[in-house]
Amino acid sequence: MNERHRLVESLLCLVREYSMTAPGETVLVAVSGGPDSVALVHALWSVREELGITLYVAHLNHSFRGEESDNDARFVWSLASSLSIPCVIEKVDVPRMRQMLRLSAESAARLVRYEFLENTAEKIGAARIALGHTADDQVETVLMNIIRGSGTDGLAGMPPVRGKIIRPLLGVRRTDVASYLQEQGLSARIDETNLLPHFTRNRIRLRLLPMLREYNPGIDTVILQLAELARADSAYMNAEASKVFKRLTIACDTGAVTLDRGELLGLDLAIRRRVVREAVKSVRSDISDLGFRHVEDLLGLLATGGDFRYELPAGVFVECERGSIVFRSERQRDVPIIYKYEIAVPGETPIGEAGVLIKAEVIESHLEPVRSPDDTEVILDLDKVKGTLVARNWQPGDRIQPLGMKGSKKLQDVFTDRKIPRRVRHRIPVIQDGERILWVVGVIISDVAKVTDSTQRCLRLRAVPVSPCSYDRKVV
Amino acid sequence: MNERHRLVESLLCLVREYSMTAPGETVLVAVSGGPDSVALVHALWSVREELGITLYVAHLNHSFRGEESDNDARFVWSLASSLSIPCVIEKVDVPRMRQMLRLSAESAARLVRYEFLENTAEKIGAARIALGHTADDQVETVLMNIIRGSGTDGLAGMPPVRGKIIRPLLGVRRTDVASYLQEQGLSARIDETNLLPHFTRNRIRLRLLPMLREYNPGIDTVILQLAELARADSAYMNAEASKVFKRLTIACDTGAVTLDRGELLGLDLAIRRRVVREAVKSVRSDISDLGFRHVEDLLGLLATGGDFRYELPAGVFVECERGSIVFRSERQRDVPIIYKYEIAVPGETPIGEAGVLIKAEVIESHLEPVRSPDDTEVILDLDKVKGTLVARNWQPGDRIQPLGMKGSKKLQDVFTDRKIPRRVRHRIPVIQDGERILWVVGVIISDVAKVTDSTQRCLRLRAVPVSPCSYDRKVV
Repeated sequence: MNERHRLVESLLCLVREYSMTAPGETVLVAVSGGPDSVALVHALWSVREELGITLYVAHLNHSFRGEESDNDARFVWSLASSLSIPCVIEKVDVPRMRQMLRLSAESAARLVRYEFLENTAEKIGAARIALGHTADDQVETVLMNIIRGSGTDGLAGMPPVRGKIIRPLLGVRRTDVASYLQEQGLSARIDETNLLPHFTRNRIRLRLLPMLREYNPGIDTVILQLAELARADSAYMNAEASKVFKRLTIACDTGAVTLDRGELLGLDLAIRRRVVREAVKSVRSDISDLGFRHVEDLLGLLATGGDFRYELPAGVFVECERGSIVFRSERQRDVPIIYKYEIAVPGETPIGEAGVLIKAEVIESHLEPVRSPDDTEVILDLDKVKGTLVARNWQPGDRIQPLGMKGSKKLQDVFTDRKIPRRVRHRIPVIQDGERILWVVGVIISDVAKVTDSTQRCLRLRAVPVSPCSYDRKVV
Repeated sequence: MNERHRLVESLLCLVREYSMTAPGETVLVAVSGGPDSVALVHALWSVREELGITLYVAHLNHSFRGEESDNDARFVWSLASSLSIPCVIEKVDVPRMRQMLRLSAESAARLVRYEFLENTAEKIGAARIALGHTADDQVETVLMNIIRGSGTDGLAGMPPVRGKIIRPLLGVRRTDVASYLQEQGLSARIDETNLLPHFTRNRIRLRLLPMLREYNPGIDTVILQLAELARADSAYMNAEASKVFKRLTIACDTGAVTLDRGELLGLDLAIRRRVVREAVKSVRSDISDLGFRHVEDLLGLLATGGDFRYELPAGVFVECERGSIVFRSERQRDVPIIYKYEIAVPGETPIGEAGVLIKAEVIESHLEPVRSPDDTEVILDLDKVKGTLVARNWQPGDRIQPLGMKGSKKLQDVFTDRKIPRRVRHRIPVIQDGERILWVVGVIISDVAKVTDSTQRCLRLRAVPVSPCSYDRKVV
């Protein structure tokens, strides 16, 4: 047997250290076509028998670069074919999704990618999803977290294993990837994200890291060591906090948890902070917008000893009364956001949950129906609108009669057809009058209030992004 | 009463939050003459009655910039006089000390400064030593620690209180210092360290931070928040580790500690790492050169299950045998370094403990005695040297007959006269023959082997720095 490339050695070492795979399992490998993921799928393929695993390739066409993106997809397809690995490719219009949701390109891409990978893994029965993140990605992630604002948890960077996700190349440097590709005579596509210089990650790679290497040539190593130390610290403290959280819990309902106030106050500061985060987490799965200040302010109020009410981000209410403190969410379990707003006509109606403002304008003449490039504007026949106009979030069972069609269609199917990820569906405003759905912002327009030759008064609706986006800012 | 400047408000707030002073106490304020320390001493003076404290000013003349340093001292003297605060000023030749000890300018200055402040505080009976570090210094410290290599402890930055040391301006930004000085009509000297562009700290201030502010304009705030979070995490975990360390200790002697091996292995990784550091600390006070790799390698050996011996930096030996693991230091308590090396004549003798190489050369002719500007070279009369030449560290009771003097003098008094800090004395090589001390490297030359007109063979000794200095690199 030939001597193995150090990339393969490092991969095997990490796979074993973290028990990333078990014999008989199917591993779905996410392949963008960039050097890292090409090396990952090839290296896993070379040791597939030794590990006793079956491979599957998944590629998401983000549509960021038009034809180039399509070429990436073709490239991945032939790579998988050449290794006789089955391959799933899906195309999503991320740029459009991104605009609709007011997410950064990076966040939108990540959201859509993870949803696609998880769904695919479920369909094909894969136990694991392998991602091609390298040690260099880890260094960049840790620095990015420091810059955005982070505590010990963020310094830990990406974990080698989280749920189904595994990162077998996390011990491998990019230089090793390059030498592996060369040795194996493999080519790779240029990583699309490298072409988006506004990404913080790329600025870190191209400007910040070179400067830091002047200060300390071993900066990559010390950052990786910091991540390793922080990961153990963070795991230990979160486990402690989790135990303490259970002990302090007096009552726990769907969307509400009650803790013992005196006990909470008596905790060590580091654990107290984490128990608060744990409490918020228990009533709301995503706590990415829970910042340092929110927690500190809440703890400050708690320390004063009086009773109080305090609102945390995204509708988590805290009520402190006598011996207990209650964290309550307005949301139900599977419908993380519920809202319904009457739309002012004419006027402006902010839909905070969707991060948009609906501008309604009445125009006393016939207008041509427009459809803005990203579907954020519609013109309706005002006289066909019945009763009050409202904006609300999507509900199962919703139906729409699409523009130009006779029958109606389930909104669920529309979302599926348009590949709109499940997780983002609840953020999209559905505009309806007293009877029917007229418009799903950025997604579909109904036939029922369309402008015709006989239209006399028009209603122009526009969805305009409001307030700086908070989804991307992750403090603590 | 006038409204107070926010600098004073912030200072009072921090002093109270951390109980930095108590009524009746004397506080020694370290004043360099730079804006921060001038603002500190003035603000403390303005609230001295409210806090019930007595102030004292201390200034160390580092001699880094010759006459300018003397002017700093004069400036501090008049500032203290104008506020009627007693003032202690001392002058130390740090540049010389630095070369002698192979320390960076920054480390040497810090070492000497802390020793001076502690001694002065003891002499005048000050309960506290106040330093002028600001929030901006904190941000730079955290970034510097990240760059040099650090775990959670280093991310915590400078603590507001540690022993006698207090930092009342740690919540204050430099911009507030400037506005306070202006408001009070105070002037300040340009901070000397700002004139040394090779300091990592200054590069961080002048180049790195401006770049990071482009990525996140609130970078200073998120770094301060990170420090705050890390401080609580670090305090909690170190307290846990300390408890566990006591529990695991089977035996504890001067310079040796024995732990239960099985129990150590059973600990959570984060605590296991800290218990190892605690064990090393218990046999050696300074663990700044104990790096990430040392701890990881030791834990790796431990996990293999076999018996082993392992050497940690600076003479700490680890022996693992059956159920126990022993950490042993070669050093005694108050003499942290003991060494004695025979000097090769002619030849080169490395003195690792002092970071120098002693080069000995025999010259068969009469040479003029030279004294290099920093006393790192001497020329002796070889025929007056009796027996073997050795280099060893200083011992209490050592005496020398200084060049040009008849009687002898205690080395201890020589060190005191020359203001050589206690902590660095044991690093300085003392060169003696079979009978007498001939040279204390960089400090003093003896009369007994001096070159005279009748000298026929000369011995030239030179102390040359060796190997990159490790005192400055602090990993983990």
